[in-house]
Amino acid sequence: MTQRGTLGVAVVGAGRMGADHVRRIDRVISGARVAAVADVDAERAKAVADGVDGCAAYTDPAAAIAAPGVDAVLVASPGPAHEAALMAALRRGLPVLCEKPLTPDAASALRVLRAEERLGRRLVQVGFMRRYDAEYLRLKALLDGGGLGRPLMLHHRHRNASSPPWFTGEMLLGDSAVHEMDVTRWLLGQEITAVTVMRPRPSGNAPEGVDDPQFAVFETDGGALADVEVYVNCRFGYQVQAEAVCENGTARIGDAHGMLVAAGGRWGGSIAPGFVERFEEAYDRQVRAWVDAALRGGATGPSCWDGYAAAAVCEAALRARAEGRRVEVGLVERPALYR
Amino acid sequence: MTQRGTLGVAVVGAGRMGADHVRRIDRVISGARVAAVADVDAERAKAVADGVDGCAAYTDPAAAIAAPGVDAVLVASPGPAHEAALMAALRRGLPVLCEKPLTPDAASALRVLRAEERLGRRLVQVGFMRRYDAEYLRLKALLDGGGLGRPLMLHHRHRNASSPPWFTGEMLLGDSAVHEMDVTRWLLGQEITAVTVMRPRPSGNAPEGVDDPQFAVFETDGGALADVEVYVNCRFGYQVQAEAVCENGTARIGDAHGMLVAAGGRWGGSIAPGFVERFEEAYDRQVRAWVDAALRGGATGPSCWDGYAAAAVCEAALRARAEGRRVEVGLVERPALYR
Amino acid sequence: MTQRGTLGVAVVGAGRMGADHVRRIDRVISGARVAAVADVDAERAKAVADGVDGCAAYTDPAAAIAAPGVDAVLVASPGPAHEAALMAALRRGLPVLCEKPLTPDAASALRVLRAEERLGRRLVQVGFMRRYDAEYLRLKALLDGGGLGRPLMLHHRHRNASSPPWFTGEMLLGDSAVHEMDVTRWLLGQEITAVTVMRPRPSGNAPEGVDDPQFAVFETDGGALADVEVYVNCRFGYQVQAEAVCENGTARIGDAHGMLVAAGGRWGGSIAPGFVERFEEAYDRQVRAWVDAALRGGATGPSCWDGYAAAAVCEAALRARAEGRRVEVGLVERPALYR
Amino acid sequence: MTQRGTLGVAVVGAGRMGADHVRRIDRVISGARVAAVADVDAERAKAVADGVDGCAAYTDPAAAIAAPGVDAVLVASPGPAHEAALMAALRRGLPVLCEKPLTPDAASALRVLRAEERLGRRLVQVGFMRRYDAEYLRLKALLDGGGLGRPLMLHHRHRNASSPPWFTGEMLLGDSAVHEMDVTRWLLGQEITAVTVMRPRPSGNAPEGVDDPQFAVFETDGGALADVEVYVNCRFGYQVQAEAVCENGTARIGDAHGMLVAAGGRWGGSIAPGFVERFEEAYDRQVRAWVDAALRGGATGPSCWDGYAAAAVCEAALRARAEGRRVEVGLVERPALYR
Repeated sequence: MTQRGTLGVAVVGAGRMGADHVRRIDRVISGARVAAVADVDAERAKAVADGVDGCAAYTDPAAAIAAPGVDAVLVASPGPAHEAALMAALRRGLPVLCEKPLTPDAASALRVLRAEERLGRRLVQVGFMRRYDAEYLRLKALLDGGGLGRPLMLHHRHRNASSPPWFTGEMLLGDSAVHEMDVTRWLLGQEITAVTVMRPRPSGNAPEGVDDPQFAVFETDGGALADVEVYVNCRFGYQVQAEAVCENGTARIGDAHGMLVAAGGRWGGSIAPGFVERFEEAYDRQVRAWVDAALRGGATGPSCWDGYAAAAVCEAALRARAEGRRVEVGLVERPALYR
Repeated sequence: MTQRGTLGVAVVGAGRMGADHVRRIDRVISGARVAAVADVDAERAKAVADGVDGCAAYTDPAAAIAAPGVDAVLVASPGPAHEAALMAALRRGLPVLCEKPLTPDAASALRVLRAEERLGRRLVQVGFMRRYDAEYLRLKALLDGGGLGRPLMLHHRHRNASSPPWFTGEMLLGDSAVHEMDVTRWLLGQEITAVTVMRPRPSGNAPEGVDDPQFAVFETDGGALADVEVYVNCRFGYQVQAEAVCENGTARIGDAHGMLVAAGGRWGGSIAPGFVERFEEAYDRQVRAWVDAALRGGATGPSCWDGYAAAAVCEAALRARAEGRRVEVGLVERPALYR
Repeated sequence: MTQRGTLGVAVVGAGRMGADHVRRIDRVISGARVAAVADVDAERAKAVADGVDGCAAYTDPAAAIAAPGVDAVLVASPGPAHEAALMAALRRGLPVLCEKPLTPDAASALRVLRAEERLGRRLVQVGFMRRYDAEYLRLKALLDGGGLGRPLMLHHRHRNASSPPWFTGEMLLGDSAVHEMDVTRWLLGQEITAVTVMRPRPSGNAPEGVDDPQFAVFETDGGALADVEVYVNCRFGYQVQAEAVCENGTARIGDAHGMLVAAGGRWGGSIAPGFVERFEEAYDRQVRAWVDAALRGGATGPSCWDGYAAAAVCEAALRARAEGRRVEVGLVERPALYR
Repeated sequence: MTQRGTLGVAVVGAGRMGADHVRRIDRVISGARVAAVADVDAERAKAVADGVDGCAAYTDPAAAIAAPGVDAVLVASPGPAHEAALMAALRRGLPVLCEKPLTPDAASALRVLRAEERLGRRLVQVGFMRRYDAEYLRLKALLDGGGLGRPLMLHHRHRNASSPPWFTGEMLLGDSAVHEMDVTRWLLGQEITAVTVMRPRPSGNAPEGVDDPQFAVFETDGGALADVEVYVNCRFGYQVQAEAVCENGTARIGDAHGMLVAAGGRWGGSIAPGFVERFEEAYDRQVRAWVDAALRGGATGPSCWDGYAAAAVCEAALRARAEGRRVEVGLVERPALYR
């Protein structure tokens, strides 16, 4: 480590998420600094790097990763570029925080997983930041405590005010519901074994040709069911809710509110406009956990196995949606490193 | 009793409340029928009586009370006319349900109380219908159960969307807060011993010259405090809330909601537009309880003592408001009949 | 009608539901009286009839229906006995309130429907009393108002503290979820066209051999989806919740509470112990509506068509559960009488 | 500033709050480091300083403030020691974050205020950290927006599970309600002009001789009323709630919850055990705001004027409590620096 225990980070990708992580490491998280930024767009890389003291700009991710003072890598480039950046980081034995997805498909996720497995220690943390959200953490603690008995079902809701113009019907599963695939696995400590996707008549708010909303049901190897409603053009705000139905009780998160207003014949609170407002502190907490682990040379949080499993479930979900039938999920045997 | 256990009721007063009670007895409550209606306005009495099978109209309350088939009396005339009607009913030994207030001042309330006391049995029930509201009943049961320890304080809120044009600053206490005076006494089983009234700068919604809102604090002989905010031109709806602060916990009523809506960046429920919607079932339950007791020849619910105590507290509150100081409440000794 | 507009009712079945309806008509609902009670158990019939002034006891439903002073029939006998009682009432042209189910299967329901259709006017009201619940009514009004856009999905929860010993896995659909089948059809104004039933590993609270909970998904001819979780041994209380997801907002019922308590590190309210507490007023409102319609010689509320459609959806659901696959629902053409 | 824009902080006082601030600056807040720690207990100072890289320990606050590398001062010593530390910091022109109270009485607070006023610029920020709490900020924004009309009343609740053994009846006002004195002034932008304190019979949970709970009413120069219930031995948890009653609506904070659990016949959420859990993020946000302002050489947040006004209101409240009467608050004219 350089400079009194400060972690030097190379940030790969200087788009919206990348620039936000640069700001977070520079201004919010103590114990880390941005040593290098890489983006295929040289100007964008330079603009971001110029705002940070002692930060160099690169167009080649591998060069940024190999730059002096780099102790760890944060991958925030587009999904298809993840595998190369992850492999470069692993070759140098550097801890990596990789934005979800680990890689865009199960086969490539498995290659990254095998590379890490050969190193014999975990270096990769996948950016499933809901695991760092205070409410999900409370739900996880409750389920692990066992006070309500065994979990039988999970009901998820995932609603966005609107989707960007390039958002397709496939992305409702691969980009949105992928979070529920991960938290289902994490909350239950079980793998998803089959997926069914059902589609009501699309909302009038959905762009032409996009089947929004969708409704997916996951079955797990522990005999639990998890359903998820994904609706990305609901207009009324950003809402992420989850209810765990256990043998002796239920627990629900996502109704959180800070201020109740009574006016004009109505009472109630406001709904977050987007995921940034809703999960801002989870992002901070995620990067802080990663920095702490990286300063100790290790890894924490969602692993390559979690990234791979999410990719495999996504593939099954996309097939289930396309073929209108239940599709089973096949996973390789879980390596010892991830048990 | 006449006609197979059906209670014949004389309704005194055919205004809004009286007509509503006639409808309730005729259509909603089994076991009773309206035998006579009295109103100083002969046409109004006739119009109401004509809608009910076998019901006669009168302009003289005493005549209605003495009419054939009358087993009980419901007094819904203006407050100043209550004493005469109550006395007439008591003279005939008939059970009475008397809309609040029992009478407009403590001295006249005491006269009625003494008349009933001389009869040696309770015949009068005062129309403090909150004692029949499901939520207040639940709060009362919780306090009586003692599971939260001794009650220390009550916080009341009493809000109306708007007040009628003839509503004065005095009526915020005598017409509105009188309900909180009664439920404070009833919930705690204690008498109010002193009253302080404070007044913020009036709301811009208040009619010229009306000091709305007001804030009153009651002290009880059990050492408890009860505060009440009265705001009768809040515009946003009708809201009655109460919180009991006990030694080991608090209990709050009045947030009840039936449907939560999420739309346009807000979530929440609706607020009742007025007391009819909020307390409709309490009115039914009150009259049903009265009919049942009257059929058995007895009385139940709020007594003359409760009506008298409310009148005495009201008088103290009005003095406290006028003189800007804490005013003590003096009550006669509680007669054995009401212990 | 006999006796000054009072409806004479024959109650068929003097078990729990029947006896409760007798009490309701005798004590709560004005405008009706119980003229006859029938039960195969003569003693039970007599015991119930003895408590009501002027009420005769029968063992033969047809005799009760034909008894003097009978203007209408309330059927509360076991499901398999419904068809005969309904046919007897229809033959006499009497209005009927029939506890759900109309009959136990679609074929027999269709026979009743055809008999009513031949009469050319509606006489039968099915006891789907949720349509009279204040919260469901508010949800229905909101959806009909259209302010939130077209409904896309319904999420139902149906939880009981415990099930009786004779409750089978089939009954989770036919006895419990049948309510959600009806409210789905009623809220949306659409017919259910296909059913899928999924089953997680049963709860440890479920009796041996009973697959509790179950999760069903309904598809409608309007392109909507409705899912329902049925869990009848959840131990923590009775909970019926519904959320309508519309194009521009959602609305949720079933979280209603009256009193919030803060004590011992927790805040919250209580959950109804059973359907009687939760839906008590809906039962009253249902019978009142039926009495009003019967006094006018007509019928209101859920019709034979609704009873038949529920039976057809139930049959599909049972097949879907048994065969582990999506099953389509076939309905006869909707007769003009029910359009 | 030294070391690439990092603020060197002297922390005066190494007790519970001081040590927590040291940890916060060292581990959580980027842009600052602890350069010196002072405590009258030399061992305690050394223990805290040893845990921080490059931090020196002192017993004399003035020496710590004058130490090399010190750019700003955080005062967390007992109240009576504040004046000396504040004066030492002001003499050196250093920004100060001073834990509440500014000083223990209005006279000494005024001396500090005058010293800062002579400097002609704000350097002191008082640790009224509720102004940095997300919920209070939302309430403040709503009131400032004016959408609900002019604020008429504030209802505050301040409940602690239990009080430390040395907590006196005076401290319910001076240590607990002082927060409500500040937020009342801040939310309304008005000064408090009179105080009334009422006391119910003490809770059985209150230690012998401590009048807990208490109920205070504040009047402001804008004609608003604010009441506060302080109950520091309620056992059930830590609860801070506020409701603003405006002309056209109300807004309430402090019911916030993250997870709702239904089990055992009850539904609800948990109550924070103490102020650390409830206001943890407000503390972080407060120090971050102070560090940012200090790095720019300025001050932000609650000022000396706010500290002085709180001290003056506290004195009035203590007199009101002791003498059982309404006491007016006298403030010096507000200096230009604080307008």
